[in-house]
Amino acid sequence: MKGTAPLRTIDLNGDLGESFGVYRIGQDEALLDQISSANIACGYHAGDPAVMRRTVKLCLEKGVAIGAHPGLPDLAGFGRRMMRITPEEAHDMVLYQIGALQAFVRAEGGRMQHVKPHGALYNMAATDRRLADAIAQAVSRFDPQLMLYGLSGSELIRAAEAAGLRAVAEAFADRTYRADGTLTPRDEPGAVLHDAGAAAEQVLRIIHEGKVATAAGADMALHADTFCVHGDGPEAAALVARLRAEMKREGIAVNAPSRM
Amino acid sequence: MKGTAPLRTIDLNGDLGESFGVYRIGQDEALLDQISSANIACGYHAGDPAVMRRTVKLCLEKGVAIGAHPGLPDLAGFGRRMMRITPEEAHDMVLYQIGALQAFVRAEGGRMQHVKPHGALYNMAATDRRLADAIAQAVSRFDPQLMLYGLSGSELIRAAEAAGLRAVAEAFADRTYRADGTLTPRDEPGAVLHDAGAAAEQVLRIIHEGKVATAAGADMALHADTFCVHGDGPEAAALVARLRAEMKREGIAVNAPSRM
Amino acid sequence: MKGTAPLRTIDLNGDLGESFGVYRIGQDEALLDQISSANIACGYHAGDPAVMRRTVKLCLEKGVAIGAHPGLPDLAGFGRRMMRITPEEAHDMVLYQIGALQAFVRAEGGRMQHVKPHGALYNMAATDRRLADAIAQAVSRFDPQLMLYGLSGSELIRAAEAAGLRAVAEAFADRTYRADGTLTPRDEPGAVLHDAGAAAEQVLRIIHEGKVATAAGADMALHADTFCVHGDGPEAAALVARLRAEMKREGIAVNAPSRM
Amino acid sequence: MKGTAPLRTIDLNGDLGESFGVYRIGQDEALLDQISSANIACGYHAGDPAVMRRTVKLCLEKGVAIGAHPGLPDLAGFGRRMMRITPEEAHDMVLYQIGALQAFVRAEGGRMQHVKPHGALYNMAATDRRLADAIAQAVSRFDPQLMLYGLSGSELIRAAEAAGLRAVAEAFADRTYRADGTLTPRDEPGAVLHDAGAAAEQVLRIIHEGKVATAAGADMALHADTFCVHGDGPEAAALVARLRAEMKREGIAVNAPSRM
Repeated sequence: MKGTAPLRTIDLNGDLGESFGVYRIGQDEALLDQISSANIACGYHAGDPAVMRRTVKLCLEKGVAIGAHPGLPDLAGFGRRMMRITPEEAHDMVLYQIGALQAFVRAEGGRMQHVKPHGALYNMAATDRRLADAIAQAVSRFDPQLMLYGLSGSELIRAAEAAGLRAVAEAFADRTYRADGTLTPRDEPGAVLHDAGAAAEQVLRIIHEGKVATAAGADMALHADTFCVHGDGPEAAALVARLRAEMKREGIAVNAPSRM
Repeated sequence: MKGTAPLRTIDLNGDLGESFGVYRIGQDEALLDQISSANIACGYHAGDPAVMRRTVKLCLEKGVAIGAHPGLPDLAGFGRRMMRITPEEAHDMVLYQIGALQAFVRAEGGRMQHVKPHGALYNMAATDRRLADAIAQAVSRFDPQLMLYGLSGSELIRAAEAAGLRAVAEAFADRTYRADGTLTPRDEPGAVLHDAGAAAEQVLRIIHEGKVATAAGADMALHADTFCVHGDGPEAAALVARLRAEMKREGIAVNAPSRM
Repeated sequence: MKGTAPLRTIDLNGDLGESFGVYRIGQDEALLDQISSANIACGYHAGDPAVMRRTVKLCLEKGVAIGAHPGLPDLAGFGRRMMRITPEEAHDMVLYQIGALQAFVRAEGGRMQHVKPHGALYNMAATDRRLADAIAQAVSRFDPQLMLYGLSGSELIRAAEAAGLRAVAEAFADRTYRADGTLTPRDEPGAVLHDAGAAAEQVLRIIHEGKVATAAGADMALHADTFCVHGDGPEAAALVARLRAEMKREGIAVNAPSRM
Repeated sequence: MKGTAPLRTIDLNGDLGESFGVYRIGQDEALLDQISSANIACGYHAGDPAVMRRTVKLCLEKGVAIGAHPGLPDLAGFGRRMMRITPEEAHDMVLYQIGALQAFVRAEGGRMQHVKPHGALYNMAATDRRLADAIAQAVSRFDPQLMLYGLSGSELIRAAEAAGLRAVAEAFADRTYRADGTLTPRDEPGAVLHDAGAAAEQVLRIIHEGKVATAAGADMALHADTFCVHGDGPEAAALVARLRAEMKREGIAVNAPSRM
């Protein structure tokens, strides 16, 4: 706590509800204690109706804000394989998935806060403005009060703003950035910060200074409203714990954007 | 027109939006001119997001009331193969599908009137009260204003009423009934009335007298709020045309229950 | 029974390759050291092409005999939900899946030993002779040298014999039997023997005496060529270890039927 | 070229078995009378086990050579949407699908002649050598006697030859070529020759002179062992009829490569 310094508030978001049928994945219950906003899979790249219902209920019990996490129709590839879809197809599949999740939110008496595209759909929407516009239109036509999460500085953020939606800019704690603002692809060396300290430092610098060091070395301006954290494996858990500890020390509160 | 006799009004419902990807099925545009309520497939047994969007739009343009037509997750079997699912699974898959369709209805500025389970799910819910209750709960928790269509006299109708929903009792123009009120299974002889005149006569008798002749010969009381008609093939088209002509002659109007 | 007594040989079979995409399930590597025959999922109820290739390779490396484990087209239900399919559909889906697995066996230079239907398909084929015949025909038409695994005393065993296939009768170490020879359903009390000692005792008695105690108390004749074991969880692992230890003590060898 | 000139023989191939469940597509029976080799869908982008069995049987009855037509796992997009898959994924999905079809060929007592990737997989394999090699390896490991069909001049043809397979170079009757040997994409003007006469002329020139006019105007060398024809719609039927008539007039026989 830095004396009279103004309290900063930031959102931490995480992917939940990615189990399917007999298959279990993720540490949903543990992650729920760390995040303020949840992205819930909608049955295309992961998740099924029973998992969706249970996950929505858990979020409501824990007071975690609920978001839809629509993905490509590719369960076998977990929505991570790029598919060449048309903007119209993106619009329709996002609308379908938001609606499916909303049914569970409504049945449980909750409220949906946001939409965050998953995996390859997220990445494609970061650079393809036509896809980004189609997704923003789907969200806006469904409910103009919904927020749209996207990679900070991406086409999806611009599309959200153009559609009159509240855009929530996402940055990554443990991924490195290239000079053009995109993430270093996972299959390249140095893509991931494995050290919790370095990741926490990157987060704090983005919050305090609005800057991040790129892989090439130079600083780049980077605004973040939310950071994506994961619950899988000891490294991810350690990173989230470190992050929350450092944020607490610096007087940065964690809260969902709809509650700020 | 029977002079001063009061006009009767009945609903005609039909299944729409059963195409999938490059596959086209049904005569949706022709059928839309004949029916007052549409049951739109939701992507499990048939339909896809693009088909759902187009079908919702067509219904709104034609003034046909919109219903969700949730089915079993069995595209290969068109939702017609009985699957042993739990009531909880039925609840969740119905909720998921209603929500998915609702997204398109909402995006197009419309309103959903009803839910009618499809195929094997419809048949299972007609006789299995626990499944029927689970489906009625799903509908009620999503929106208690929605109507629930079910086979006249079935467990689904009773479950709808118990859940406080408006139950819409369905009868069939071209199917014959067994003494216990169930339909003669399609693979048995005499299951289908191929003669349009006989079918029209069955409908008029149900409307006017509340009775139908069973396969065994005796009459059975049968109440109907809606009749299911089909758009596939010349026989189905002829039946609908004959039905509408006879109903017009008798002064029976065709309208959706939400508009009566 | 030891000393100069002739060695008995029995097969232990286990389900492998049930992972899918990013989803991991089962303890395949551990189980491979315990079993003589593997039933490999074929992509319908579980498994995917990459998992199939890796599992076939592992079996060949470990010298475990390979079998196809075809299931119902129900990944969401893991092939455990009964579906009303026609004998023709059963024939075609079994043929499809056997062929798909055979491609990996052939590419890796191996040989397929057997086919064992999975889950609900196994149970349906145990009591429905027409389904059983359709499955046996599919196996026989594909390769009459393949063995067909089925529940001891079931219709599937009779169908296999009628089709001229070598039938391999399966019994269960940790499941209890009803007086009619069927397994006590999992959702009934006493369905599963949780005590490794009791399970091992049941196995040894079936091997030595050809008898098992039914849930009602009386003994029943039961022939077994193979026992099904599992690799999931500490209880299953303890059971297999106990079983193998007791069998070793009694001079009972474990080997695949194709190697006896 | 007629008189005593040696008879030329060419293969005509067509896509068959693309129906799925209740959905019917294509004019398989009509097309079977026109082609010498059939590419049968294997259940990923189209087709199902029952369709595969019936189509294999039809081909055997009509004496049309059988090929597997593996595609991307995208029924909703009919395998036409590019997906970023790894070479290993391509290898495994091709192997799976070839095996599945082979089961029906074997059960019906036939023999598989070739493999031709479908849609986006075909196009990706035409330009991506690593994918092409993975596919050729899958085919070769399954059966080195199988032929591999690919776009004339493509990486897939080179990969087939490198793998020791017999490569069958495919050209198109009704598609135009760009200067680099690729097809003009369907969404560009002039991609398709709608005039049957022009298409027939293109085919004859490729056969006789080994040349085709590119969209830019200049001639390009183009070798073809087979031409792809379609059975859908009156235009396609007219083209095939014209083609066969002109080929007959020129003394060019139609036959499958395995029968030459």
